Parts: sequence; C-alpha cells; structure tokens
Amino acid sequence: MSDNEKKVPAVVVRRLPRYYRYLGELLNQDIKRISSNALSVKMNVTASQIRQDFNYFGGFGQQGYGYNVEYLYSEIGEILGLNDGDTTVIIGAGNLGRALASHDTFEKRGFKLVGIFDNDPNIIGTSISGIDVMSIDSLEEFLSENRVDIGILTVPKAAVVETAERLVKCGVKGLMNFSYTELNFDKEVAVENVHLSDSLMTLSYKIKTNKN
Amino acid sequence: MSDNEKKVPAVVVRRLPRYYRYLGELLNQDIKRISSNALSVKMNVTASQIRQDFNYFGGFGQQGYGYNVEYLYSEIGEILGLNDGDTTVIIGAGNLGRALASHDTFEKRGFKLVGIFDNDPNIIGTSISGIDVMSIDSLEEFLSENRVDIGILTVPKAAVVETAERLVKCGVKGLMNFSYTELNFDKEVAVENVHLSDSLMTLSYKIKTNKN
Repeated sequence: MSDNEKKVPAVVVRRLPRYYRYLGELLNQDIKRISSNALSVKMNVTASQIRQDFNYFGGFGQQGYGYNVEYLYSEIGEILGLNDGDTTVIIGAGNLGRALASHDTFEKRGFKLVGIFDNDPNIIGTSISGIDVMSIDSLEEFLSENRVDIGILTVPKAAVVETAERLVKCGVKGLMNFSYTELNFDKEVAVENVHLSDSLMTLSYKIKTNKN
Repeated sequence: MSDNEKKVPAVVVRRLPRYYRYLGELLNQDIKRISSNALSVKMNVTASQIRQDFNYFGGFGQQGYGYNVEYLYSEIGEILGLNDGDTTVIIGAGNLGRALASHDTFEKRGFKLVGIFDNDPNIIGTSISGIDVMSIDSLEEFLSENRVDIGILTVPKAAVVETAERLVKCGVKGLMNFSYTELNFDKEVAVENVHLSDSLMTLSYKIKTNKN
C-alpha cells in the first residue's frame, strides 16, 4: 500500500498522527465507516485535501460509502511505523523528563521507554515509572548493549548539542528535542524540535484576534 | 500595519511563532537585514510563501535589500499580541505543571504566570517557581479578583472538561490543553490542544522512511 517513491510533503506527514488519533477515537466509539466529508469536518481539513493526502499512500480504496475506519487506522499506524516497536531513552530526569516518562500515550502508540539518564547524583538510582535513572556517564555503554531508536532530550540548553551528538554517534536515529536550541543533523537523523511556547504564542494571537 | 479584515489561514498563523523565533535568533546574532530568500532557507518555506504570509499583515515593506530584522521581529511580536502582557494560570501541579511553571521561554515571550492550582493537599501550599500552589477550590475566587487570559491545563484526562468549563465560565479566553482529550469551545474561546505524542509519531515515520 505504501508508495515510498513519491516524496510526501512535510505538511502531509504532520497530518498523519492527527488522522491516526481521530481514527482511534472513532474506533473507540465503535464507528466502522466514515466518509471523507465527515472526516474532513472532524479534522478541519477539506475532503479533497484528505483524498489528496491519502493518495500519497495509495488512496486506501475509499468506496462510495466511505473509508473502513479499522483498516485506515491500521494502515496509517503501519505507515507511521508504530508497529516497529521503536525504543526510546529520556535524557534529563527533571520535571519534564519525569512527566514524559509517565506519559502513557507514548506507550499506547507503541513506543517503549528503555532508559532514563541524568547527571545529578541525587537523581541517579531513583526510580521513575519503574525504571532506575542511570548516570549519563554510562550512556555509551548502555547504547552499545541496547537498541535505542529515539532519544528524548530534556536537558538544559547548554548541554543539548553535546548530548545529541553522543546519541547520534551511538546510532540513535531520531531525536525529540525540548530545549529551545534548534538541532540539525544530516538527513539520516530525524529531529523533532518541540517548542511549547509556539502554542502559547498562537493562543495569544487567537485571543487578540477574537477580541477585535 | 495589521489588517484584520482579511481572515488569516490557520497554517499562516502557525508559522508566525516560528518567524518570531528565527528573527529573535538573528537579532541575537546582531543581524540587521535578511532577504526573503535567506529567511526561506532558515524557515524551510519558499521565499514566495514568506511574501504571501507577510502580505496578510501588510507586507512589512520589504525593499530590494531585504527585511529589517528588528522591525519585522517587533511587528510580528505585536501581531502575536506578545506585548499585551497576557497572564496565565497552571491547573495541575504535577511533573508537567512544574516543568511548565519553570519554562523560562514563556516569561521571555511576555506571558506572566500568576497562579498554580492543584487538588492534592500535599502539594497545596508548596512553592513552585516562587508561586504558592493554591487549592483548586479557590479557583473561582482567584479568577474573580485577578485577570487571567490563559489557562494551562495539565490535569488528568478525566478532569479536563470540567476544569476547562470552570475557567471559561470565569472569563478565561484561551486554553492550552495537554490532556489527550480534545477540547472544543465556541469561537470566543481559543484552544490549543498539545499532543506530545504527535511529534513522536512523526519521528517514527521519518526514521522508517530514512531506513528505506
């Protein structure tokens, strides 16, 4: 079904997790079929955009009576690689690292947290979500013995570039970066820079616009 | 300069915080002018898209020699409403709430945290980032005495709808929602639902695609 010859635009890729979430909600409500029109209302995207998006992946064979929700959910999950059992480590066991370690949606989506690292002797050895925090000094050893796909970085800004490079050197292929610093690597390393303040700025704009 | 007659598409609004961040970085590097071409490389958006985006707000008078960085930064900040001194409260003083309370980018962007609320007697009265955690029971009283623009919700999923409604009833105009539940209010209430697992799913897709 997937068609890796066609380069999928970033904006389409970014909609895939949203499709996946909405379809999961429909499944929870025991809804078996949905038209692209109904999906478009829920997603706030035009129906024609949805069809265009899906065409990058073969179209999912919509019939006159709509998409099969379960099939679509499972296909999009497959395209997203959620069945690959990607493993993650969290670097930085501060408040944000702790919050992410116990963020149960990560696990529900098929990601397995296998290690948490910090440099604070007071935190090393304590347990978060059933995982003992390891010393950052043992990072390379751990990565040589365990396959880790994604590094989640919640370290202070000053440490983020060095930490990211250590992970990449040991073969980590994806980085989720919460520091304000924008990370950039070669094409083989995927990076998602999460800017929580962007959402707050967007809210500020909407509030201001609503007032006018 | 702003032109509120034209409805700005959501995708353009969502790029404004990114422009603002990039321009801030340029300012930090003491760069005074930038062409739309150079900005487009940094933003990973075409130069023509940048010009189209800016045209929604009057175009910012680009000359042959490019945009004035400081002017553009200040105009976009103004459009985003970052000079309005928006106030925030955090509901839920768990790990994520604590992490957000000490997220210094929020303050740097002009947002002022004025209150933190929780329902756990062991947490109420403790201090986070210099603010005493208040009982959720005193939320309405606090909101009647203090102007609060934005509520940041880090409560458990089961509590999020009720908590959001309490905030909205007291006049809060914007909600940043970290629970998996998608909040929807009338147009007068702006909502940003933050889905951290979307970034992780996007990473998974990129890793999978890089491998092929």
